[in-house]
Amino acid sequence: MLSYLLSRSHEPGRRPGKLVDPEPEERVGGLTIYRMDFGGGHSPQERRDTDFEPMLEPLPDASDHALAWLHFQGDVSAAQLTRLGKKYDLHPLALEDVLNRGQRPKIDVYRDTLFMTLALPHVVDHAIAIQQISLFIGPNYVLSFHAGRHDAFAAVRERIHAAHGRITYAESDYLGYCLADVVVDSGFVVLARYNDELDGLEETVFDDRSDDLVGAIHDIRRRLIGLRKVLLSQNEALMRLVGLEHRLIHADNRPYFRDMQDHAKRVLDLCDGYRDTAASLLDTHLSLASARMNDVMRVLTLIATVFMPLSFLVGVYGMNFDTKYVWNMPELSYRYGYPILLGVMIVAVIAMLIYFRRKRWL
Amino acid sequence: MLSYLLSRSHEPGRRPGKLVDPEPEERVGGLTIYRMDFGGGHSPQERRDTDFEPMLEPLPDASDHALAWLHFQGDVSAAQLTRLGKKYDLHPLALEDVLNRGQRPKIDVYRDTLFMTLALPHVVDHAIAIQQISLFIGPNYVLSFHAGRHDAFAAVRERIHAAHGRITYAESDYLGYCLADVVVDSGFVVLARYNDELDGLEETVFDDRSDDLVGAIHDIRRRLIGLRKVLLSQNEALMRLVGLEHRLIHADNRPYFRDMQDHAKRVLDLCDGYRDTAASLLDTHLSLASARMNDVMRVLTLIATVFMPLSFLVGVYGMNFDTKYVWNMPELSYRYGYPILLGVMIVAVIAMLIYFRRKRWL
Amino acid sequence: MLSYLLSRSHEPGRRPGKLVDPEPEERVGGLTIYRMDFGGGHSPQERRDTDFEPMLEPLPDASDHALAWLHFQGDVSAAQLTRLGKKYDLHPLALEDVLNRGQRPKIDVYRDTLFMTLALPHVVDHAIAIQQISLFIGPNYVLSFHAGRHDAFAAVRERIHAAHGRITYAESDYLGYCLADVVVDSGFVVLARYNDELDGLEETVFDDRSDDLVGAIHDIRRRLIGLRKVLLSQNEALMRLVGLEHRLIHADNRPYFRDMQDHAKRVLDLCDGYRDTAASLLDTHLSLASARMNDVMRVLTLIATVFMPLSFLVGVYGMNFDTKYVWNMPELSYRYGYPILLGVMIVAVIAMLIYFRRKRWL
Amino acid sequence: MLSYLLSRSHEPGRRPGKLVDPEPEERVGGLTIYRMDFGGGHSPQERRDTDFEPMLEPLPDASDHALAWLHFQGDVSAAQLTRLGKKYDLHPLALEDVLNRGQRPKIDVYRDTLFMTLALPHVVDHAIAIQQISLFIGPNYVLSFHAGRHDAFAAVRERIHAAHGRITYAESDYLGYCLADVVVDSGFVVLARYNDELDGLEETVFDDRSDDLVGAIHDIRRRLIGLRKVLLSQNEALMRLVGLEHRLIHADNRPYFRDMQDHAKRVLDLCDGYRDTAASLLDTHLSLASARMNDVMRVLTLIATVFMPLSFLVGVYGMNFDTKYVWNMPELSYRYGYPILLGVMIVAVIAMLIYFRRKRWL
Amino acid sequence: MLSYLLSRSHEPGRRPGKLVDPEPEERVGGLTIYRMDFGGGHSPQERRDTDFEPMLEPLPDASDHALAWLHFQGDVSAAQLTRLGKKYDLHPLALEDVLNRGQRPKIDVYRDTLFMTLALPHVVDHAIAIQQISLFIGPNYVLSFHAGRHDAFAAVRERIHAAHGRITYAESDYLGYCLADVVVDSGFVVLARYNDELDGLEETVFDDRSDDLVGAIHDIRRRLIGLRKVLLSQNEALMRLVGLEHRLIHADNRPYFRDMQDHAKRVLDLCDGYRDTAASLLDTHLSLASARMNDVMRVLTLIATVFMPLSFLVGVYGMNFDTKYVWNMPELSYRYGYPILLGVMIVAVIAMLIYFRRKRWL
Repeated sequence: MLSYLLSRSHEPGRRPGKLVDPEPEERVGGLTIYRMDFGGGHSPQERRDTDFEPMLEPLPDASDHALAWLHFQGDVSAAQLTRLGKKYDLHPLALEDVLNRGQRPKIDVYRDTLFMTLALPHVVDHAIAIQQISLFIGPNYVLSFHAGRHDAFAAVRERIHAAHGRITYAESDYLGYCLADVVVDSGFVVLARYNDELDGLEETVFDDRSDDLVGAIHDIRRRLIGLRKVLLSQNEALMRLVGLEHRLIHADNRPYFRDMQDHAKRVLDLCDGYRDTAASLLDTHLSLASARMNDVMRVLTLIATVFMPLSFLVGVYGMNFDTKYVWNMPELSYRYGYPILLGVMIVAVIAMLIYFRRKRWL
Repeated sequence: MLSYLLSRSHEPGRRPGKLVDPEPEERVGGLTIYRMDFGGGHSPQERRDTDFEPMLEPLPDASDHALAWLHFQGDVSAAQLTRLGKKYDLHPLALEDVLNRGQRPKIDVYRDTLFMTLALPHVVDHAIAIQQISLFIGPNYVLSFHAGRHDAFAAVRERIHAAHGRITYAESDYLGYCLADVVVDSGFVVLARYNDELDGLEETVFDDRSDDLVGAIHDIRRRLIGLRKVLLSQNEALMRLVGLEHRLIHADNRPYFRDMQDHAKRVLDLCDGYRDTAASLLDTHLSLASARMNDVMRVLTLIATVFMPLSFLVGVYGMNFDTKYVWNMPELSYRYGYPILLGVMIVAVIAMLIYFRRKRWL
Repeated sequence: MLSYLLSRSHEPGRRPGKLVDPEPEERVGGLTIYRMDFGGGHSPQERRDTDFEPMLEPLPDASDHALAWLHFQGDVSAAQLTRLGKKYDLHPLALEDVLNRGQRPKIDVYRDTLFMTLALPHVVDHAIAIQQISLFIGPNYVLSFHAGRHDAFAAVRERIHAAHGRITYAESDYLGYCLADVVVDSGFVVLARYNDELDGLEETVFDDRSDDLVGAIHDIRRRLIGLRKVLLSQNEALMRLVGLEHRLIHADNRPYFRDMQDHAKRVLDLCDGYRDTAASLLDTHLSLASARMNDVMRVLTLIATVFMPLSFLVGVYGMNFDTKYVWNMPELSYRYGYPILLGVMIVAVIAMLIYFRRKRWL
Repeated sequence: MLSYLLSRSHEPGRRPGKLVDPEPEERVGGLTIYRMDFGGGHSPQERRDTDFEPMLEPLPDASDHALAWLHFQGDVSAAQLTRLGKKYDLHPLALEDVLNRGQRPKIDVYRDTLFMTLALPHVVDHAIAIQQISLFIGPNYVLSFHAGRHDAFAAVRERIHAAHGRITYAESDYLGYCLADVVVDSGFVVLARYNDELDGLEETVFDDRSDDLVGAIHDIRRRLIGLRKVLLSQNEALMRLVGLEHRLIHADNRPYFRDMQDHAKRVLDLCDGYRDTAASLLDTHLSLASARMNDVMRVLTLIATVFMPLSFLVGVYGMNFDTKYVWNMPELSYRYGYPILLGVMIVAVIAMLIYFRRKRWL
Repeated sequence: MLSYLLSRSHEPGRRPGKLVDPEPEERVGGLTIYRMDFGGGHSPQERRDTDFEPMLEPLPDASDHALAWLHFQGDVSAAQLTRLGKKYDLHPLALEDVLNRGQRPKIDVYRDTLFMTLALPHVVDHAIAIQQISLFIGPNYVLSFHAGRHDAFAAVRERIHAAHGRITYAESDYLGYCLADVVVDSGFVVLARYNDELDGLEETVFDDRSDDLVGAIHDIRRRLIGLRKVLLSQNEALMRLVGLEHRLIHADNRPYFRDMQDHAKRVLDLCDGYRDTAASLLDTHLSLASARMNDVMRVLTLIATVFMPLSFLVGVYGMNFDTKYVWNMPELSYRYGYPILLGVMIVAVIAMLIYFRRKRWL
């Protein structure tokens, strides 16, 4: 997760705002453009194409209350972004951030546009990845870029078609909110997976003793460390949005922004909590492992303490001293030497067991 | 506890403000509505019903200084909430938060209403659960929703009937405070349980060695991690309330809000303190376990160090070398071979004991 | 210490400001009232009684620059507080806080009075306890309540009698400061005890190996966790006092408030530092314990490594194979069999010792 | 890294602003001066020399929109700095900071100049070092000092020659930004190395058991602790720059500053994250080591538990009691004594294995 | 270090501002007074005496731009301070702080004077101690008090004599800055020692196994905990000074204050960093110790696992069963019994070694 923030960093000294195509291995593969035109009294129109140029036209009419939403799914090239930048008068630094994935989530305020980069946590092939979402919110257009393959915003297009609720007002800030809200709520989906993972680990921690557990806990911790950094920035960016005074932002939409930021904080709280839980889990695992080791050691000590003296005793009477001298092991020639020795050993064992019992080792 | 914040999350892309009934397994079962009408010179009237529509009437009269308090205990359906929203002109996002339990405690300020979600910690079947309380505070009404079964606000109804103290002024902000205060003070009840649990663990930690203890400490830590997140938000929300300038809030009631927030901070401090205590307890447990292991190892080492050399010695004289050669174990044929050997062994043991005593192992 | 914050919590739903006598087991036993009248050109007058009503009279005269200080040592009953509240026009919430001990230290500002609750750390029977001090500072009176038995403010009464320094101005805020200053400086006395305790533990940690040490460290940590929470609130309350603009507060007294808050911060810093020191001490204890265990294990391993092979060797020549066959242990019949074996064993031991020396185990 | 902040500290009592040449061992060796003149309608001119005085001339003309950038690579002497200070009217404290390397990154605002010290993380001979960059930003000049050997700003000179983009405006604040941006983005390069190091350690932690790993983790932690302190200050300084109102700062350049600070924050986040990852890695290593030890101990205990009783048994029948007495080891004379004993031993072993299996040690 | 904050605390209830001589054991021994008169067109004059009264005269003339600096090195008595307080109209609380050493570093602002207490870290007899420096900055005088023996400000007197740089302006705030700067920069000297200590420990941690190391790390941690608290307050006090608007503070001197605070922050950063490094060092030591223990245990287990079964085997053939029965150890009478047994044992050892190799214990 942390590597998300590292990916595709500037090389030091490169011209800011210089658009460079991502490396082939960083590409997602393919580009699909969705265009929705709605509001202004017309029924919503959806177009979908892989061809770039024709999708830009017609420019939405500023006087009309219509809104054009262009969504770029996949890899946009530097050339295409330059074209877009000219058409919509976008700041080159913002365009660069669209291309250089791995931005900290943030919001940049320009005179006529708002630019946001967000981090969409997403489950790809059973692993959790973070994908960058970039948003330009203009007076009569919204441009969104998703550096991933799955169609995250299908539900929003559905809602536009359904033409129900506030979205029909065709306000660009509300549409931007809808998209950002999808990103924020995806956090719950991903964190629910962490919840399940941790629950699973918690169950195994009390009966398992394999190394896998330690590896799994470390893995989950490391991922949560990274995810937390990203979510923290996302929360900060959204907090800034809530307090933002800008001509593009309608006062009536503020409660929605607040609600979204509230969700972002909740996601962050969950992430924090899971990180702490994982740490506590490792502590617990260590405690249990040490408790089990104590058990093992106790058994070893019991066995050794009982049998070493006994073995010594029987070893004594296995010596070959010449018994013709009366001082050399006269016990060997006693009539009841063997039973006496057995008796001594039994008494010794009983005494040791009582001692252990007192020490609470038994 | 943490899972409280996760429960019933939005699915990404759903229309904000869209009211969706909770899943059957999340329902509490049944709905009871309590209605209190008081103030305005009339004696307090209480009605209780499971039927929705008739309880809404009559609308409280704005000019009169009367107040209507509707309390919804249990599951409110999406349809009923829509109806309420229309009647009292409530914001759809707030209504959604009533339905989607697991909100972070917060306060949302609208022009004519205040909306609060609070988290009521409660002991259900010997386990501690968090239940959502939602409050709408309007000019002449208070709507409260409790997603649980026990009747948490009975004492407040009693106080209204008793018609004593400030509650008789029938101010909606004061009534809201009374309800929120119940929620905050419930924190003490729950934390007193944690106190008892920790005291119990503390006693066992000094004489117990079972794995249960580690599990219990992990469990309590995990729950306190979750509870803390919720209480932290609750405290923040109440701090916002204390500083809030709003036409619904009477200056004379501010000391009460301050007092409540003070309690919330105290609950949070306790929660923090217990979390630290639990961490310290685990450290202590680990230290004690390792001290006990040291004891065990010392005994093992003592035994082995004493008896291994002795066993070796007696083993030597158990060998069957042909003693007809004078170089082969002539000791065996000494007149006092055996007593000499015993003497050597006794001296060796004494020397070792002195060594151990010096090393402080005895 | 933490339990101080828990003690005597509201039961949820109780009427705020309702005065309830403390439970018998929470009572301190007895009530002594001290009254000092001074300033206004008169010489200081001290009265002491256990009787409540007569001590309230006469009311101090507002026009005169005189000040009446009533100090209630021990248990004040709900009825008495109600009486006081009426006489001095005190807010019911403040009165409730006097009765419900275990408040977070705080300062509440009313139009004509300041109300403070403070936490007095005190050594009772070799244990450290926290006792609540409550202060009402009015224009011409100061009411102080101490839920404990020892006479903490005797020195202040002495200073009034001595009629020396700023206290002779008979300003209620300065008297309040004097009382609060006693509370703050008591922190040093208590922390000096912790200092001694930690110094004592530090000495034993380097030569002791009993479980008591771990218990003692845990105990001190737990107490410091609780004390810290209380002192933190106290420091915050005093910081608020320093910045407070109120008609009762004279600008000339501000340096004294600042000085007091400075002491409170210093007490808090010390408390923090001791908590960290205790944590470091536990780490050290664990490290030393594990170092000692390493020593023990090394000895065990040395002994076992030396004597197990030797015992095996002598065991070999203790076997009873029929030596009439030339392949069966011909060594037994060698003329120098025994000396050769002894030589082999000595060489083996030397080799092992060299190996251990290289491994740095010796 | 931490030692960067310690290097070349003031000796207490030295006159502030007194310029003292660095100690010989702190010198980098040699001084190269680069001068770029550009803007004002002229094509960019680059000069490079090791001679000091001639490079200062001609003074850039204030009325013209031209900019002179002097870059001092290597060791500047106290005398040269004094000369510069007089020529450009620079504050003596700033000059002192140029000479006394190891400054916390910061920004100092003077009436006509901005002075920044930055910390350039750089890979020298496979080790990561921090080198100080100092910048004076004046109305028509930029002075930069780099206490290192590699030519960090070559790319910026290239961009000036290329005469493309905003840099052609020849604004001193934009040029300053370009230089600071190189410093900030160098952080990514260095952190990518830490990323690789940690990835490498993570792989070895799961199969390695050498001490080197612990040393490597400690080393990386220590370096990240130091780096973090420096990056934290750098981020703070840049945050101050973003919010700075100064006649030298053009509003149009603010988005660039914001973008740079964003990168600085991202670098800091990465650094934080790696520190946490390293801590988690050590925990994991410890857990794995303790798990492996448990395995070892279990084997030891198994072996000892199985063979000690058996050895005792066979020792018993190796005793030399006089078997002419019927009570002395009559088993020796049984016809099936040996097979019976073998049977008993086999049964005992099987019983113990079952016990261990139940205890989950096998 | 922490005990610095505890030393000489108020006894609760003492009159604030009451000057009490320090206990004999807290005295430094002797008092030397240095007086410098400079500025106002005169050449600097230095006087040094142990006699108090004559050094106070003549009072510096306010209209003249002259400055008198009185430095009190050692123990000032309560009586002398009272005398000073009257002569210079100093606040009694400030005087008390001069006498009661162990103040948190702070700055108190009075109408005509600034009062600062600072903590001077100093190496005395190879140990690091903190000594209090108190400063009164008035319009035409500076009073400084140093509760220690070494002459910390000699370099400042030299600079006054040298009559070079800003100090010749004879501004009291600049002189105060010079003195405080000496205190701040002394931090670097002391932290350089910690740096060396930690470097030394770091080297031993990788080859040492004595308990001393743990004690040394604990000791350094504890000292850094205390030092950090003091430096934190010092940094805060200086931050307040930087932002202070006061008639005694000249705008032109602000850059110097800023520079000093910057140094104080750097000292604090270093202190923080060393504390973290010490913690990391202890972790490393523990990891290494546990790794070494693992090695020891592995050897023990190897030896035991190899020799216990072998010893058992040879024990079997040392039994004395009556071999006249054919079932009793017929192996003893085999022609090749002994070689066969040796072969079996060699095969067993090889098998075990292969097993251990697979388990990576060899």
